[in-house]
Amino acid sequence: MGKTITVSYYGTPCYKIELQKDFQLLPAKLKELGYGTNRACIVTDTVVGKFYLEEVTALLSPMFTQCTSFIFEEGESSKNTDTVGSLYDHLIQNSFDRKDVLIALGGGVTGDLTGFAAATYLRGIDFVQVPTSLLAQTDSSIGGKTGVDFLQYKNMVGAFYMPKLVYMNISTLKTLPGRQFSSGTAELIKHGFIKDKEYTDFIQTHRNAILSQDYQAMEEMIYRSCLVKRDVVEKDPKEKGERALLNFGHTIGHAIEKLSDFTLSHGECVSLGMVSAGYISYQKGNITLEQLEGLKDILSGFGLPTSLEDFSHSPQDILAATKLDKKMESGKIKFVLLKSPGEAYLTKELTDSDLFEGICHIMKADSKCC
Amino acid sequence: MGKTITVSYYGTPCYKIELQKDFQLLPAKLKELGYGTNRACIVTDTVVGKFYLEEVTALLSPMFTQCTSFIFEEGESSKNTDTVGSLYDHLIQNSFDRKDVLIALGGGVTGDLTGFAAATYLRGIDFVQVPTSLLAQTDSSIGGKTGVDFLQYKNMVGAFYMPKLVYMNISTLKTLPGRQFSSGTAELIKHGFIKDKEYTDFIQTHRNAILSQDYQAMEEMIYRSCLVKRDVVEKDPKEKGERALLNFGHTIGHAIEKLSDFTLSHGECVSLGMVSAGYISYQKGNITLEQLEGLKDILSGFGLPTSLEDFSHSPQDILAATKLDKKMESGKIKFVLLKSPGEAYLTKELTDSDLFEGICHIMKADSKCC
Repeated sequence: MGKTITVSYYGTPCYKIELQKDFQLLPAKLKELGYGTNRACIVTDTVVGKFYLEEVTALLSPMFTQCTSFIFEEGESSKNTDTVGSLYDHLIQNSFDRKDVLIALGGGVTGDLTGFAAATYLRGIDFVQVPTSLLAQTDSSIGGKTGVDFLQYKNMVGAFYMPKLVYMNISTLKTLPGRQFSSGTAELIKHGFIKDKEYTDFIQTHRNAILSQDYQAMEEMIYRSCLVKRDVVEKDPKEKGERALLNFGHTIGHAIEKLSDFTLSHGECVSLGMVSAGYISYQKGNITLEQLEGLKDILSGFGLPTSLEDFSHSPQDILAATKLDKKMESGKIKFVLLKSPGEAYLTKELTDSDLFEGICHIMKADSKCC
Repeated sequence: MGKTITVSYYGTPCYKIELQKDFQLLPAKLKELGYGTNRACIVTDTVVGKFYLEEVTALLSPMFTQCTSFIFEEGESSKNTDTVGSLYDHLIQNSFDRKDVLIALGGGVTGDLTGFAAATYLRGIDFVQVPTSLLAQTDSSIGGKTGVDFLQYKNMVGAFYMPKLVYMNISTLKTLPGRQFSSGTAELIKHGFIKDKEYTDFIQTHRNAILSQDYQAMEEMIYRSCLVKRDVVEKDPKEKGERALLNFGHTIGHAIEKLSDFTLSHGECVSLGMVSAGYISYQKGNITLEQLEGLKDILSGFGLPTSLEDFSHSPQDILAATKLDKKMESGKIKFVLLKSPGEAYLTKELTDSDLFEGICHIMKADSKCC
């Protein structure tokens, strides 16, 4: 019957994560929450919509008084305030009120965008996450971080707003393109490295089963990642401290992602960012060279990049972009390092030169002359 | 030293309302909250800015590392997602981060707009209300309701987001245009009628002192209104029930406001809406004709309209606009009636004909033939 995890918000049980092998139980889980005498809007993108919108609509239509859908063009470039505006418009045209519910069917972009629209339409209506990508299932659908890009600024506008339910059909990962699946594993590996050494070992040991999408291995992996993510967001619901550990690999990673103009995937950039941060951790004497190599091995075992050669930007460009990132606080960059594999910590004490060495390491550049 | 009221949010003390006779203590109150090692942005409109921006900037500049200002064109037409976008842009250009704070200096539009930008910039940064209009001081600055218009739809986009402090300089009311002052009294009278009969009597007895802006009378009046508003929002932080009582006069009022294309002020429309709702309350046998006349007397005593003659729209238009309003729930209109002067209640049982009679009453039209 699948696994269930309960997520609390400031100490009070708030919503459940349901791990299932199909969409069949979605109506029952929604009914348990009291839905049924209201409207639902399924928000999805053009790609995921093609695979699952018909099936999910057929399941939900009988239980709601009206079940509409809002489909937007697939891709990061849709995750902005304009798409949110179009969604508001759809909701207004269909007379959605505060008792109605949005269903985010898709990956991270869909969840973040739908969550933000739900947080702000009529000062907040309910929403449910139905994540279909590995990244969304293990990371972005949990914890209530919602947001969109504003102009060229990534995730600049958003809200902390909790879903009423996270329902994941693990079988949807079968339709995920290989590169996206591999990209998603970056966040899983991250979970292991920041919090759970044993989970890292599990991923390493079950690599073949995971790569061939063996259901039992996948379920166990997603379950354990959700537990790590759950524990972190419960301790720090609004990212004031501990939650920042989830940014391991993301600070330099985001800078690379932006400079690559999103030709590199989020997971690929996080992979590179983790290697950078791992190298800085090694330089600080926290981890051994062997442990750094272990990090690279597991990443490359899942087809993720560990170096960035022939990139169209210099290490200096990446450093500058990193410092422009919003993870600054009173002018100091917040950065996540490893204390050991399985334990991360936050520091504000890195110098530009520390960051630069980390960046040069993945570019195979000499930090002294480049 | 002024009066102080503490407002709780879900049972926990959350922020203070400070009633002061000038701006002098604003820096000290901000320091008490730990501000000082960060940036502040004062958000104000072109009219309020002319009166107070220089003074407030001079007071705050010494205590912040940077104190910027964002000035927008005065008026309801600025309260939209475009102005919020310009404010985001200002914050990005000035590298505002999560530790920084927005200061809303102005009336309801400024507070609602600034609060929404604060709720959504970087998933939420701090904001402080410094309300300068009667409406903002007694109503909109308290309770964390923030929002802006989207396209032609009023307050369609927003969030519940609490300020860190509400600091009101009551003397600013002296620069409020007479019509705005009078308009603001509509909400005060509303507070008395929905919750506090004794307060209604106080307003009636002290009418001359209030109209001549005697400081003691003003302070007492604002204090008592803030207490009513505080009690209501504490019982119902997210407007799920009780808080809807504050909508007394607003359902038909909003419809008139929209149809008048905002040539009638918010307070004037609320006044008309209260008379309509009062008449329906009388028709339902809740209040006497004398009590209805008492409501009209107190409103007209403060220069507020109690009838709407020569309006360019018909009662039918107002009814249709009322039913389009967002205070609908599963197709039924939520409406606030008086049980008695000083006690209001929420009903979903009104028929179109009930509403129509209430509308015809203020238009001095015969509901049977118009």
